[in-house]
Amino acid sequence: MTDNSNQATLARAKERSAEIQAHIDKDPSVFRILTGDRPTGRLHLGHYFGTLKGRVELQNRGVETWIVIADYQVITDRDGVGPLQERVLGLLADYLAAGLDPEQTTIFTHSAIPALNQLMLPFLSLVTEAELHRNPTVKAELDATDGRAMSGLLLTYPVHQAADILFCKANLVPVGQDQLPHLEQTRVVANRFDKRYGRSGDKPVFPRPDALLSAAPSILGTDGQKMSKSRGNTVELAMTADETAKMFKKAKTDADRVITYDPDNRPEVSNLLLLASMSTGEAPEMLAERIGDGGGGALKALVTESVNDLLAPIRQRRAELIQDPGYLWNVLARGNEIANERANLTLTEVRQAMNMDYPA
Amino acid sequence: MTDNSNQATLARAKERSAEIQAHIDKDPSVFRILTGDRPTGRLHLGHYFGTLKGRVELQNRGVETWIVIADYQVITDRDGVGPLQERVLGLLADYLAAGLDPEQTTIFTHSAIPALNQLMLPFLSLVTEAELHRNPTVKAELDATDGRAMSGLLLTYPVHQAADILFCKANLVPVGQDQLPHLEQTRVVANRFDKRYGRSGDKPVFPRPDALLSAAPSILGTDGQKMSKSRGNTVELAMTADETAKMFKKAKTDADRVITYDPDNRPEVSNLLLLASMSTGEAPEMLAERIGDGGGGALKALVTESVNDLLAPIRQRRAELIQDPGYLWNVLARGNEIANERANLTLTEVRQAMNMDYPA
Repeated sequence: MTDNSNQATLARAKERSAEIQAHIDKDPSVFRILTGDRPTGRLHLGHYFGTLKGRVELQNRGVETWIVIADYQVITDRDGVGPLQERVLGLLADYLAAGLDPEQTTIFTHSAIPALNQLMLPFLSLVTEAELHRNPTVKAELDATDGRAMSGLLLTYPVHQAADILFCKANLVPVGQDQLPHLEQTRVVANRFDKRYGRSGDKPVFPRPDALLSAAPSILGTDGQKMSKSRGNTVELAMTADETAKMFKKAKTDADRVITYDPDNRPEVSNLLLLASMSTGEAPEMLAERIGDGGGGALKALVTESVNDLLAPIRQRRAELIQDPGYLWNVLARGNEIANERANLTLTEVRQAMNMDYPA
Repeated sequence: MTDNSNQATLARAKERSAEIQAHIDKDPSVFRILTGDRPTGRLHLGHYFGTLKGRVELQNRGVETWIVIADYQVITDRDGVGPLQERVLGLLADYLAAGLDPEQTTIFTHSAIPALNQLMLPFLSLVTEAELHRNPTVKAELDATDGRAMSGLLLTYPVHQAADILFCKANLVPVGQDQLPHLEQTRVVANRFDKRYGRSGDKPVFPRPDALLSAAPSILGTDGQKMSKSRGNTVELAMTADETAKMFKKAKTDADRVITYDPDNRPEVSNLLLLASMSTGEAPEMLAERIGDGGGGALKALVTESVNDLLAPIRQRRAELIQDPGYLWNVLARGNEIANERANLTLTEVRQAMNMDYPA
């Protein structure tokens, strides 16, 4: 796509997201959301502000929410699953501590839902190899794997994602801008399934899900680079207040003692202000004014306090939750049960639409 | 591969198949076979002599046999499933009429076994896109689709086949020579799973299945070309004796009234002799001698009678079976039940080996 058509696509997506937000205010029961994470490590502030906080808000506004812990996606680009059980447990604790409520939100793992995974088969028939290659996330992941050969699982990832979204008939997927084309692939699958294979009565089996663009500004790590666990430049939800203070102590600032919010010219300082702003709800310019000529030290103290205040109750709940793995596994088992029921219903419809519902 | 290494591979496979045949005579309980068909039409003499007869013999020698009706493979290279229910029912009737015994042999459909299909996910992580491309059957199918874009389902077919074979832990797969590389892909998947993900206790989760090369000579259609429904050059099991006679009446022969078995110089005449020979068990040279100078007419009469005699009891059973669809669907439902039990057990082992067996 050209930059212009990218811009136009983005503008349309933003407009559509605004309409949907208004619709949610009026009638949240119309929507069902599917979103999720790969269990590759603990959630950090980037996840919290980028996706988790928004999910909790949507849940609390009354939108039915489904969250996949994408355990099979761990092996798209690595040779082993790592300490998977520990990571899944940690993710469950992060979710619940941050406010996801298992009574309202269904949390499940890929590997526990066979009927969801079976949808890969009919869906794979609906996309071409060339389309899989064009998917930007497949391209990006491949670039990130540093010349490693593309696995069949990475290549078919967009189809698996379509199965995630469509098995529960989600009609809304919270995404970042870079993920818009992914969702487009899911819409193509839903559309082609309808045209090629058949319907449920006179209705399409699958909805064509909308993107809900995240409104959160993107924040950087303490070094001004992209947040990532491997860079050690981010605050995990599970860290202590002391660990958080240490992380901000080594944050990058600049030599000007007068703190101002100026993202273009002072990206690191402005990023810390933004983080404090998102944690407290105060405007970054106001925070800067309050610090005045206190310099980097005062800025770091402010952002540390802001983040620790925000995370304190989450951390306390998380510490309690992680002491009770039996409860967390039970939450997952119940989520998997609900997801299996839904997946089995959808697969039955799919088999009927495809004339594969043989009499018993 | 070069022709020489192809020859060497084939020679080794033939040797190994002979050893296995001897082993089956001694102890058939050591082996489990997986084989199957796409439900795209009725079985004909090519299927009967090429695979079906051999399956019945293996079953009757006491080898545990699993047969997949590969309904998802119908859509690897076409846009719809066609009259699928009718075709699946016909295939069931063909199988049972030919001697497959549902008390000994498990017959199931892809679309009914979610845990089998889920194996696609971990298995896709074990193969690269380049390996999928090298698969000769993928190449051949792609050529046959006449420039049609490669679907994701066709591309990943070798991985789905690995799931078919490995879900029931088959250790033996009857194949034609052209299918040897396919089975090699399945062995690679079994091997890599063991190395990369883990074991069941101290044993590999999956066996590395052997190929059992078909000993049947390949026979051609009545026009001397490859047998195929679309050419109208073959006798289906379900045809009547009259339809069979008509089919052979238009068979291609040659001008020499003296009938001889000479495949190199008289391919069409020799093919008809071979077909009569395989139907009666008499050597083609003997049959030729008996016809003498009776010409093409006598040859056609002989092959018609031989095939009709062979198929008469099969056709009678088939006609009875097709009158009782409830029974046939019941056979499939029972087969699917057994296959689901097995697939669920295997998936549990796979999830344990991959550390994805989360506590409940």
